[in-house]
Amino acid sequence: MDFQGVKGTRDFYPDVMRVRNYVVDAWRRVSLRNGFEEYDSPIFEYLDLFTIKSGQEIAEQLFHFTDRGGRHLAIRPEITPALARMVNARIGSLPRPIKWFSVPRLCRAEQPQRGRLREFFQWNIDVIGSDSVLADAECIFAAVDFLREVHLTADDVVVRIGSRPLTILALGAAGVPTDRTEAALAVLDKRPKLSDGDFRKFAAENGLTGGQVDFLCRFQDCAEVGEARELLAGQEGVAEQIDSLAELMAALGSLGAAEYCTLDLRIVRGLAYYTGVVYEIFDRGESLLRAVAGGGRYDNLLEVLGGPKLGATGFGMGDVVLGILLEEKGRLPELARRLDFFVVDADEGSFDRALAVAGALRAAGFSADFSYRRQPIGKQLKAANRCGAARAAIVRGDTVAVKDLATGEQGPERPVEEFLAKIADS
Amino acid sequence: MDFQGVKGTRDFYPDVMRVRNYVVDAWRRVSLRNGFEEYDSPIFEYLDLFTIKSGQEIAEQLFHFTDRGGRHLAIRPEITPALARMVNARIGSLPRPIKWFSVPRLCRAEQPQRGRLREFFQWNIDVIGSDSVLADAECIFAAVDFLREVHLTADDVVVRIGSRPLTILALGAAGVPTDRTEAALAVLDKRPKLSDGDFRKFAAENGLTGGQVDFLCRFQDCAEVGEARELLAGQEGVAEQIDSLAELMAALGSLGAAEYCTLDLRIVRGLAYYTGVVYEIFDRGESLLRAVAGGGRYDNLLEVLGGPKLGATGFGMGDVVLGILLEEKGRLPELARRLDFFVVDADEGSFDRALAVAGALRAAGFSADFSYRRQPIGKQLKAANRCGAARAAIVRGDTVAVKDLATGEQGPERPVEEFLAKIADS
Repeated sequence: MDFQGVKGTRDFYPDVMRVRNYVVDAWRRVSLRNGFEEYDSPIFEYLDLFTIKSGQEIAEQLFHFTDRGGRHLAIRPEITPALARMVNARIGSLPRPIKWFSVPRLCRAEQPQRGRLREFFQWNIDVIGSDSVLADAECIFAAVDFLREVHLTADDVVVRIGSRPLTILALGAAGVPTDRTEAALAVLDKRPKLSDGDFRKFAAENGLTGGQVDFLCRFQDCAEVGEARELLAGQEGVAEQIDSLAELMAALGSLGAAEYCTLDLRIVRGLAYYTGVVYEIFDRGESLLRAVAGGGRYDNLLEVLGGPKLGATGFGMGDVVLGILLEEKGRLPELARRLDFFVVDADEGSFDRALAVAGALRAAGFSADFSYRRQPIGKQLKAANRCGAARAAIVRGDTVAVKDLATGEQGPERPVEEFLAKIADS
Repeated sequence: MDFQGVKGTRDFYPDVMRVRNYVVDAWRRVSLRNGFEEYDSPIFEYLDLFTIKSGQEIAEQLFHFTDRGGRHLAIRPEITPALARMVNARIGSLPRPIKWFSVPRLCRAEQPQRGRLREFFQWNIDVIGSDSVLADAECIFAAVDFLREVHLTADDVVVRIGSRPLTILALGAAGVPTDRTEAALAVLDKRPKLSDGDFRKFAAENGLTGGQVDFLCRFQDCAEVGEARELLAGQEGVAEQIDSLAELMAALGSLGAAEYCTLDLRIVRGLAYYTGVVYEIFDRGESLLRAVAGGGRYDNLLEVLGGPKLGATGFGMGDVVLGILLEEKGRLPELARRLDFFVVDADEGSFDRALAVAGALRAAGFSADFSYRRQPIGKQLKAANRCGAARAAIVRGDTVAVKDLATGEQGPERPVEEFLAKIADS
């Protein structure tokens, strides 16, 4: 019998787990300091919750099953529908704006490939109950605050910010009929992944004329909001969208995130549920084809799930692409195992006291380990080094001496009782 | 449309999430200081991994499914089989003893009831690669270290320690044929949950004579290892098992866990895979029928999963029963939302500077929030109190004043630049 994990899943051995914890701890720390509160949803839900928004075809990408009670269930592929469900269930009692974050484990029944696995972790930051661009700005700032926290600079990564409503106005200005809007957005979403020739071919296949493509490319290539304002001049609602984008960029500037952020009207996002600003975070070197994170405003989702119409905005950042980026750029710190103390018994007769020292150190909050085998001091000190211990507490009879394992310096032998009393006080 | 979570699962709203994090953080902290390293396995595995050990009937208690590739998969109901799989896969390169912990999310297709849900979290501590009772002692000590950490005293809870091999020797001494051993162990496992009359009836139905039951009850009721030694005198292998138990109790005494631990030969554990010492942690008040934690030595599991025969011992502690216990005993600390700063703008013209202050505070590691709406200072200070903010940073023009929200004391107005420089240095 040979047992293996399922392809596309990961075994988190301690060295890999330390990397995961380094990222997840930073996600949590940054979320909390940005004023977000943590929540979580169950790992499985009724299948309907995930298909209502995206249609039955999404079921193909889900791990779904029927339980003994005949319920159609699915492992969550994203947390946003559950977030909407939870907020809707307490809509009357939750103070707004609701600023929540989560680090869900998600599963998708996809073909595993570089940057895409069947099981992964995803940081989710959302603000619900506000129409203010400040809510969008805060989400983007939290992402930037995290990027800085893990030593990814504005030279490494970029937040590309687009606008769904402005893009829809551009489609109107280009003469695309409104019943073709969704299809045309899906075409534009593909542009960054295709060569110019391939894109034009793809656009033509999907009913866009050459003139329309020219106009839409001019729109998407605007480097500043002012250019877009000029290009779309005369369209109803343009001023409002342009002002909103400008306000967002100004807020990001005030918060201190400007160097990471750039207007990029090519960003459309694949999912149909976005209704406002949309953004994706990319490796500036573009060695990775996938976005590190993506998000935007989705003002209709709560309503679709049976709740009120309520402003909502947020993003998701997965651990897989981020992990590749951190590794490629060499930004992961050394994450070796560390211990405060390794307790050594100088002779077998001292072992009871060594156990007492180990127990007392742990109870006082110090990490401490010891060898299960009675063996010479030298071997125990080697074990101490293997565990990354900073110090050895060497117990001999009724005394303890502390040895610094980096410098090799050893302190005086002190009575065990005195040492324990001091430990308990610390 | 009305969407709900599945019965037996929990929505972790921020207040509930804080309780979960309080427990999980303590599990992690205690594990690390006891010298254990964290690992994790995928949320789903091949169904075989879980049925090989416990038979097909366990599939009834699993959420299992077939994916598009025709693989028979299951959401993990426990992590130990995955632990054995992972260790077996790297058996040649992992230094021993392997001291690992995990806090897996687990799912079981059971009928939800008090203390038992379909989805829960379970702390797992295991030592693999050692036959020493020190490994058993360390696991039990880690459990006790955690109980102390969450303010559960030796008056609240007790670790009841039994022995599978000693119980098997008692079955032999009582004249139970060896091919009836497993069945008889299952009978004894039920004893603590039944009245004396019901137990005797149940035992008779399962082929134990009245004399055998008398003898086995006398054995199980031994309060000290010495009594059991006398009762089983003459049985081969008894001395070794008695010495091993005595050595375990002595090690627990040296480590400083004696007050929580007691010999209790009624502890057998339901699962067939245990091979040595077994233990369960109970509420001393017995208001909860279920164990808070349970574990023991399982020296055959790695071999069953295709690896070598290797000593292994460990336990699991779920969050559901523990949570009920902490709540009932009132041992949960106050876990309200906390913020270091709430940034207030004294007038709309100062808002840009207020955003800059909020961004700088966060980047420097302070938690900070602010209001999306421009409103009078009084309203902003109320919002600050709702968020649990310790201080308000009141921005007026180019100055900031820090107000302590507990005492109401307000510091001098200082230039924003000076404040930001000081923050960045801290």
